[in-house]
Amino acid sequence: MKKLINSPDDVIADSLKGVEASDKSVRVDHENRVIYRATPKAAGKVAIISGGGSGHEPMHGGLVGVGMLDAACAGQVFTSPTPDQMLAATTEVDNGAGVLHIVKNYTGDVMNFEMAAEMASDAGVEVATVIVADDVAVQDSLYTAGRRGVGTTVLLEKIVGAAAEEGQDLAAVAALAQKVSDNGRSMGMALTSCTVPAAGKPTFDLPDDQMEIGIGIHGEPGRHREPIADAKSIAKQLVDPILADYDFTGAPVIVMLNGMGGTPLIELYLMYGEVLPLLEEAGVNVARNLVGNYITSLDMAGCSLTLVKADDDMIRLWDAPVSTAGLRWGM
Amino acid sequence: MKKLINSPDDVIADSLKGVEASDKSVRVDHENRVIYRATPKAAGKVAIISGGGSGHEPMHGGLVGVGMLDAACAGQVFTSPTPDQMLAATTEVDNGAGVLHIVKNYTGDVMNFEMAAEMASDAGVEVATVIVADDVAVQDSLYTAGRRGVGTTVLLEKIVGAAAEEGQDLAAVAALAQKVSDNGRSMGMALTSCTVPAAGKPTFDLPDDQMEIGIGIHGEPGRHREPIADAKSIAKQLVDPILADYDFTGAPVIVMLNGMGGTPLIELYLMYGEVLPLLEEAGVNVARNLVGNYITSLDMAGCSLTLVKADDDMIRLWDAPVSTAGLRWGM
Repeated sequence: MKKLINSPDDVIADSLKGVEASDKSVRVDHENRVIYRATPKAAGKVAIISGGGSGHEPMHGGLVGVGMLDAACAGQVFTSPTPDQMLAATTEVDNGAGVLHIVKNYTGDVMNFEMAAEMASDAGVEVATVIVADDVAVQDSLYTAGRRGVGTTVLLEKIVGAAAEEGQDLAAVAALAQKVSDNGRSMGMALTSCTVPAAGKPTFDLPDDQMEIGIGIHGEPGRHREPIADAKSIAKQLVDPILADYDFTGAPVIVMLNGMGGTPLIELYLMYGEVLPLLEEAGVNVARNLVGNYITSLDMAGCSLTLVKADDDMIRLWDAPVSTAGLRWGM
Repeated sequence: MKKLINSPDDVIADSLKGVEASDKSVRVDHENRVIYRATPKAAGKVAIISGGGSGHEPMHGGLVGVGMLDAACAGQVFTSPTPDQMLAATTEVDNGAGVLHIVKNYTGDVMNFEMAAEMASDAGVEVATVIVADDVAVQDSLYTAGRRGVGTTVLLEKIVGAAAEEGQDLAAVAALAQKVSDNGRSMGMALTSCTVPAAGKPTFDLPDDQMEIGIGIHGEPGRHREPIADAKSIAKQLVDPILADYDFTGAPVIVMLNGMGGTPLIELYLMYGEVLPLLEEAGVNVARNLVGNYITSLDMAGCSLTLVKADDDMIRLWDAPVSTAGLRWGM
């Protein structure tokens, strides 16, 4: 296993030490493994938290900051955080205006966030929840009832983060979150598997001449395997299922071309150059985009494509100021 | 070869199409393979250009923007751009205040930038040059007389970019560039080789249980190989040679923990968490840092460490506003 780690058991604790050491805009609760904004919360602001298994960095910890998340809970690699972590984060960030939980649709995450929301509610904190289930690759999966929650999560955190920052109340923020979730679709592919530190070997075998289409973010099976194709063909295999699933015409669309962690930027830009003409030919009005590593699967090589059908207000919120360690904003 | 490309011959052209498609703040001269700022240049501003072989993204193309570069020339993968590309960029960005060339110390780059500077000078453009040669791993190498130019380049482009933006003249900008170059040191290591698309196979073989210490940014040989160690030991092997080479005490220091392209962010943060205490124990005052992929080697797994001994003015310039597609700023 070729990884820059001390031991598989210490990966999360050690990585959180590094986050704290490098980024003065956040503080880390090491006991509960929660990353918070370092600056005091604004009075009356709805708080937004997310979290999930680690191994998808910069999501979610790198998305904590002004204009996005108030806190992120880090689970073990590819494993949901516990309800206790989520409860600690929820009660800590609440200042009376309520808390939005952003949850990717995986069975463990959904169950644990639900328990945390109930406990927080018992403690007098108003909680709303949005579940992201945007992966068009599979209807159900090993780890989900319904679609997996993937790339739309990143775009949603930006948009609703801006809404909370400008003072919208919990009902409005939650309704907006649901709208973004409903309007987002993703599709991914992998050239290689990934290696969970505790396992010490790749999650699945993928022969040297094969790629996996429809992969999720945990090395779970995709739709099918086939011989590695050129970037143009791969772009079509990402775009077509998304456009077949939802009508993305007639409104401004935000596009993310995301790397899975082991693919260099030169290839991600190249892929975006193949994806954009396909979208334009299909009549999609690409108003904004992100190209880079935002929701990853450890060292997996590959990429995913996410589209969110927006409106003028969502574009305005997309353009609002943001300051997090983990995000670059493209045009 | 597992890459998201169309064909090895088209990697650079296709990737530049993607850069242009994704980032409205730059424009691309496809014939000369130069990335420029899209907005008109400020009158009287010293222009700053860099460039080099492709495969190190986001450097240099992703560093074009307000507060950093005016233009970047993209060579073939790991191959210097031609003097003609550099001349085109130099004459295009000059507005009478002169042009600074930022050159990494590789024989081809140095020779070609020198020829371009002579031709530009003949055409009436005042050119100053800074050569970065900061890699403490080797004294000479396969591709250089003297040390290789690596990570300090990124930090230098930020600092002198800010100086040019605030209106400093060419002599001042060039002197500052030389000072940053003189005060920067780097050391890198690799867990894997990288694959140049045109070669189709890894540049060197590195057994599953071995790592290479003192690697450059082209898959060239390092200092030595040894069994893969834990992050703590690797951190020491990066920090010690740098501190042995130069006195980094007594002034604020800017630190970059850089990924080589195939290493995920979770491991880079973990490494920074190991590096920082070693620096602090040695009396180094770490004033600012960057953690992420800034100067990469295609899909190589590994990392490098760069330190620049700064002063209050360099820190002020470091903190100045910047807007590029390829950069995240940590604290």
